[in-house]
Amino acid sequence: MPYELDKTASSFEQDFKEFLEARRDSEQAVDEIVAAIIDRVRREGDAALLELTEKLDRVPLSADTLRFSKREIDEAERLCERQTLEALELATERISDYHRRQKPEDLSYDDATGVRLGHRWNAIDAVGLYVPGGTASYPSSVLMNAIPAKVAGVSRVAMAVPTPDGQVAPLVLAAARMAGVDEIYRMGGAQAVAALAYGTESVAPVDKITGPGNAYVASAKRQVFGHVGIDMIAGPSEILVVADAENDPSWIAADLLSQAEHDTSAQSILISDDADFLEKVKRQIEVYLQRLPRSEIAGESWHTHGALIRVGQLDEAAELVNRVAPEHLELAVAEPEQLAAHIRHAGAIFLGRHTPEALGDYLAGPNHVLPTGRSARFSSGLSVLDFLKRSSVIQATETSLPAVGPPAMTLARAEGLDAHALSLAVRLGLDKQGD
Amino acid sequence: MPYELDKTASSFEQDFKEFLEARRDSEQAVDEIVAAIIDRVRREGDAALLELTEKLDRVPLSADTLRFSKREIDEAERLCERQTLEALELATERISDYHRRQKPEDLSYDDATGVRLGHRWNAIDAVGLYVPGGTASYPSSVLMNAIPAKVAGVSRVAMAVPTPDGQVAPLVLAAARMAGVDEIYRMGGAQAVAALAYGTESVAPVDKITGPGNAYVASAKRQVFGHVGIDMIAGPSEILVVADAENDPSWIAADLLSQAEHDTSAQSILISDDADFLEKVKRQIEVYLQRLPRSEIAGESWHTHGALIRVGQLDEAAELVNRVAPEHLELAVAEPEQLAAHIRHAGAIFLGRHTPEALGDYLAGPNHVLPTGRSARFSSGLSVLDFLKRSSVIQATETSLPAVGPPAMTLARAEGLDAHALSLAVRLGLDKQGD
Repeated sequence: MPYELDKTASSFEQDFKEFLEARRDSEQAVDEIVAAIIDRVRREGDAALLELTEKLDRVPLSADTLRFSKREIDEAERLCERQTLEALELATERISDYHRRQKPEDLSYDDATGVRLGHRWNAIDAVGLYVPGGTASYPSSVLMNAIPAKVAGVSRVAMAVPTPDGQVAPLVLAAARMAGVDEIYRMGGAQAVAALAYGTESVAPVDKITGPGNAYVASAKRQVFGHVGIDMIAGPSEILVVADAENDPSWIAADLLSQAEHDTSAQSILISDDADFLEKVKRQIEVYLQRLPRSEIAGESWHTHGALIRVGQLDEAAELVNRVAPEHLELAVAEPEQLAAHIRHAGAIFLGRHTPEALGDYLAGPNHVLPTGRSARFSSGLSVLDFLKRSSVIQATETSLPAVGPPAMTLARAEGLDAHALSLAVRLGLDKQGD
Repeated sequence: MPYELDKTASSFEQDFKEFLEARRDSEQAVDEIVAAIIDRVRREGDAALLELTEKLDRVPLSADTLRFSKREIDEAERLCERQTLEALELATERISDYHRRQKPEDLSYDDATGVRLGHRWNAIDAVGLYVPGGTASYPSSVLMNAIPAKVAGVSRVAMAVPTPDGQVAPLVLAAARMAGVDEIYRMGGAQAVAALAYGTESVAPVDKITGPGNAYVASAKRQVFGHVGIDMIAGPSEILVVADAENDPSWIAADLLSQAEHDTSAQSILISDDADFLEKVKRQIEVYLQRLPRSEIAGESWHTHGALIRVGQLDEAAELVNRVAPEHLELAVAEPEQLAAHIRHAGAIFLGRHTPEALGDYLAGPNHVLPTGRSARFSSGLSVLDFLKRSSVIQATETSLPAVGPPAMTLARAEGLDAHALSLAVRLGLDKQGD
């Protein structure tokens, strides 16, 4: 059964702490296996990649068939329903439009001393996008990862998707094409991450790898981090809904289940000031669980990790939200902006009664790759910024250097870095022994 | 002796590749030791932290003396030279001014369907700043880490600095106060990182940890990553100078040594189109090495990792720069902007003959925490953005939801996520079995 907490109870603080600290992810001892796979792919290239793919995905491939051909992608597109492709196109358009507004500006100015300062943004050259195979192979995730990269100006987006027993979701290939992915490889797991990070004869290396994956993929991303960039390591997903009694309990029940159906370790939390409303939502969830196709997953998630939290006043919810720092936050209340003003930590905020989280998963526009497991305290959802990097720019001249050089020399000497001071002194005519 | 490469030679491509791939960092097997330390601090709190500090830094402390008192910081300030404090104040002012210009704007707009979209930035609540002890204890690094956090609006910046044998650089404490650091603890190594990440009785946990450190600190940061945020794991530092023959060789020699004196694994690279100029710089470096206080370190760095690269034409330098993706790039040429226009990957660019890199280390304004070891391909220097995170915002209404809800339902069903579709259907009056 879900957790039930009452903020008006004297045990609340202790109960809430235990709830916050309860672990949901089953950590597996995969690091060593993954390290060995990465090492093999680094040393043996294609040979290791193809052998591991045949062994783990049961697909015999060659250097020629590793990559999907244009014809294979055409074929996959033909297998997709027209209505779904149209929805995917709308999503592509809306996600692109939103992400274009994230593009940052370059900066350049001359300060009072005449020193020119600024920064310039450049796109990463090549990005690898990991897409899980099987049931977790979501076309929406392809869009959410590839579009920001392309909007940023990444010239090469290479996608890896495992094809266990040769199977791949046609919509995933269609979405990749729509989002502008340049290369798609039939590979998965740690071996795919290694191939993207270090390159093989058939796969050119990339500079950064993004996208979700299982424990092996997550471990591989951690291990190649530093050699290439990575996005966050996603943990189990969560939603927190703050709702008053004016909501239709069935709407809120559906929202909580939309998170729970992702994964047995997903978490759905409802905060309300009305005990009766909480009870109604709880009952409605059981009704829905009778008929939903993924009720086994959703039920296990809800009964193990779900939570109903009663607060005395709705405005007490903000503090609890900030402590949970949820990936998704719905504010299904009469004045959502009033409450939102007090929210400091949340991956995405869905305002009002008519904004179910699922809208953001597909085509509202903002990214659905969001910080999980309380990491919204210190990180943000995926964005165009993740595919750009900044060079700072400094230009002093013969006339401006004398204004800032001497104090810099003072600090260099205070740190015992005399060659630093020397590089300033020679330019200021202050070094007598130079030549 | 430094590497000497000639782009006009037939072996250049092979030589340059080997040069790029040569390892400079000595990876140590510290992960297990660090994991044990983190585990102990997590379980035992202050007791483990104080015992490890006594053992490793030879300082017996109590919960009361772990943190520097206001009086101790006053005292440290009095020990600093007035001229140095003034230079530090100028640096604080200039760094603050530059970083204030990095603050991003919130976004909010209504799209054509009437859906409100946007994002909001919030500061991280609490940040831990690691400062190395001993000879690598640099006040400039305190400013470069703490100021962006404070400009971002971080309300609590807690600093950890080890005090081996009770020693600490007074300027480090003065810089911390000047930059607005809120708490300073006498602790270092993996135990300090663990205390900041998980908290103890005396040290409240933080949400993100930044700052440089040795192999133990780097390993600890990697291990607590996910539970808290971290900045990049800094590797050995490097400079690449592109210089024509019009430069004074002694200026360029000093610049190359200013990088080399940091660390024996630092790297200094000079690219020029003039063989005679390269030779002159090489000779001048040996002259300077006779008299610089840190010539042992600088000499080992230069002779082991340094490089002189001759190109046929200066404009060929841009491609090599992009492949090196240097932390620091000096363009000591007549038309630096022309060359800079072709640079895609560099942490910081110093334009023209009068902008030695040391200026950027102290007080030009931009951050000196920059991506090392070719990671400028995919990452940026430290900035205000590293201490902020973004919540996306979505608000649909009864009138706008019908425009975007149905295609989202189509995609949810295509992905087999029926509760997602249900959460939209109930709001659109399309679910008949709801209650």
